[in-house]
Amino acid sequence: MPTPPLPAELQDVLAKPNPAVIGTVTPEGKPITVATWYLWEDGRALVNMDGERRRLEYVRANPQVSLTVLDADQWYRHITVHGRATLQDDPDLADIDRLSTHYLGQPYGQRDRGRVSAWIEVESWHAWSGGRPWT
Amino acid sequence: MPTPPLPAELQDVLAKPNPAVIGTVTPEGKPITVATWYLWEDGRALVNMDGERRRLEYVRANPQVSLTVLDADQWYRHITVHGRATLQDDPDLADIDRLSTHYLGQPYGQRDRGRVSAWIEVESWHAWSGGRPWT
Repeated sequence: MPTPPLPAELQDVLAKPNPAVIGTVTPEGKPITVATWYLWEDGRALVNMDGERRRLEYVRANPQVSLTVLDADQWYRHITVHGRATLQDDPDLADIDRLSTHYLGQPYGQRDRGRVSAWIEVESWHAWSGGRPWT
Repeated sequence: MPTPPLPAELQDVLAKPNPAVIGTVTPEGKPITVATWYLWEDGRALVNMDGERRRLEYVRANPQVSLTVLDADQWYRHITVHGRATLQDDPDLADIDRLSTHYLGQPYGQRDRGRVSAWIEVESWHAWSGGRPWT
């Protein structure tokens, strides 16, 4: 599987506000997937979670995550990055506001709950377009 | 987390050719996510893989999978089902043809490679719409 950096063409796609799904693993070894916002910055992906989300415990126990990004224009083109997530609190909601602005054009609406960010350092990736490797 | 059956409103959404991402776990405990076609039939989800795909080995070793379906009309509405996958060969390509017809309106193009189907029996599910539980 290819390793970073990703080709510029794919990084240009990742920079858009695409639909994405993140996968984590529970302590019992079960996969968990959920739709997520992400930001692609400097070759890393930022995601953000509610501080009470059980998924947070899973990532603390096993920081390996997988993020599949669907090209917003044509979802049969997709890019997946695998890597480790590093967690950090988002006390001022600065990160979730950046994510919300990227996707919705405005700061995040819910201001009364703690948020936690995860930076995903890419260890490997693959990209598919119409059932064939993309680039 | 809710258990089956899913509400009719959600099953109606699942019946459409939506973008979806499936999550599996490697023997080393790493999550793997990838975009996939699926069919929703009789409360179960059918997916289909190339017979040489490494993901197939992962599912044989750990049949737990997670499938996140994004509403094709509004991807911030999404449904995730967790469950066990049962594998079966697709020697006549009948399943992949049904999937291809559902998404593309025509049988699957590549006829020279073995395919394997996985039926996902739903054990639990959740659905979100705009950051809140959906239904």
